Amino acid sequence: MTADFLTFPVPAARPPGTVFIVGAGPGDPDLLTLRALRVLRDADVVVHDRLIGPGILDFAKPDAEVLYVGKAKANHSVPQDEINALMARRARAGKRVIRLKGGDPFVFGRGGEEVDYLLARGVPVEIVPGITAATGCAAYAGIPLTHRDHATAVTFISGHAKDGDPDLDWDGLARGRQTIVVYMGISTAGRVAARLIENGLARSTPAAVVENGTLATQKVATGTVAELEKVIRDNQITGPALIVIGEVARFAKTSEPEHWPLAAAE
Amino acid sequence: MTADFLTFPVPAARPPGTVFIVGAGPGDPDLLTLRALRVLRDADVVVHDRLIGPGILDFAKPDAEVLYVGKAKANHSVPQDEINALMARRARAGKRVIRLKGGDPFVFGRGGEEVDYLLARGVPVEIVPGITAATGCAAYAGIPLTHRDHATAVTFISGHAKDGDPDLDWDGLARGRQTIVVYMGISTAGRVAARLIENGLARSTPAAVVENGTLATQKVATGTVAELEKVIRDNQITGPALIVIGEVARFAKTSEPEHWPLAAAE
Repeated sequence: MTADFLTFPVPAARPPGTVFIVGAGPGDPDLLTLRALRVLRDADVVVHDRLIGPGILDFAKPDAEVLYVGKAKANHSVPQDEINALMARRARAGKRVIRLKGGDPFVFGRGGEEVDYLLARGVPVEIVPGITAATGCAAYAGIPLTHRDHATAVTFISGHAKDGDPDLDWDGLARGRQTIVVYMGISTAGRVAARLIENGLARSTPAAVVENGTLATQKVATGTVAELEKVIRDNQITGPALIVIGEVARFAKTSEPEHWPLAAAE
Repeated sequence: MTADFLTFPVPAARPPGTVFIVGAGPGDPDLLTLRALRVLRDADVVVHDRLIGPGILDFAKPDAEVLYVGKAKANHSVPQDEINALMARRARAGKRVIRLKGGDPFVFGRGGEEVDYLLARGVPVEIVPGITAATGCAAYAGIPLTHRDHATAVTFISGHAKDGDPDLDWDGLARGRQTIVVYMGISTAGRVAARLIENGLARSTPAAVVENGTLATQKVATGTVAELEKVIRDNQITGPALIVIGEVARFAKTSEPEHWPLAAAE
């Protein structure tokens, strides 16, 4: 193997008519994988969600068909069934289709349902993992998700709930010694924190909120799990954000990475 | 922003003397991020572990100093203290240092300890996330880690244990409705399975073992959690492997992705 990136083979021996279900990472276009970039450059059709980092779609071919099917909360612009049917139709017409999702397609991305649908209809599929929001935001906010002294496990949950509380094992989550990462949890943060505390998590457990993680506009706010709702309100966090709950959240840096040696002395 | 990858700015405004703690992903060099590639190409010193994918080190400059500090099990080739001191020394001499780790540096990678050490000594640090083994292996084996119908949460644990069982909240883990991903779990798989079953996890819960995940040599074996040790033995799994336990493991494809439409009909 040579050391020159550009001599890597082009997207592999996948036939036309393949659907590539690809994670675009958490936002920073520099967190695309080489494979995602190659597949995107090669695609005839780009079917994408709302949370795709700035500039990433510019990598597509100028004549690629670019279709936005993103969902804003409670406003499903294109129902999942239609997204599935659309991809299968384009693939059957011999197009190389990329289904581009924010983060990783298999972590709260409904990629599993899309793969099921396509494979059941004989459509070739390749899945390309992406940097999921948890690891992306953790890296850019200086929060180790596991730590020998503080967290022997890390659990990803979704704060999204149709009505009331998300349906989760609160008792198991509240045991401590693990890191809890909440995706899509801003609107339910107060309830999630309350359920964890009711089930025994210490009120003083550190929490960090990372808004617009990995982007130039990233904002990191910290407090305790008991204060979580107030932290979100006081810091006017309204954009896409990830919540980290657990001892490791005390390592969160609220300044930008280029100032971290100073931040460490804060 | 232009659509040409090569016109992206070079590794950013980090001064010489910065240590970049970088995830190299799960194995396939195509799963490097653009940022990891840029940092690696620019580094004066490369300090790397054992599980770095094939060909990845070839991206380093020809005159870069490449130092192997990897650990084989029970055979720590370079103690963590020495790794830390080595990185700080090179950084203080004005070198651009990359600390290249398999997977993601903040998921069972001890990246947190290295960051602490460096920042406490005023050494500038940047952390670049990598595709962690869980998402990499899941994508290449067709296993969605979360799924609306089967798993509302996913937990990463380490099977590594000095003596006896890993120190984990078995009761919480055994509740079901979540996916459990075990890193470094081959040697303790039987004990992990037994503890989960003792604590109430159904013996019939699907499990998948992904050996050499994302590499051309990837092997996927499946069974139930009760059979986990036997599955590992029967399939002669001895290399680096990841274990996925939970309903979603039934989606695991044991054939290669290029045959997946057939696999779906198996």
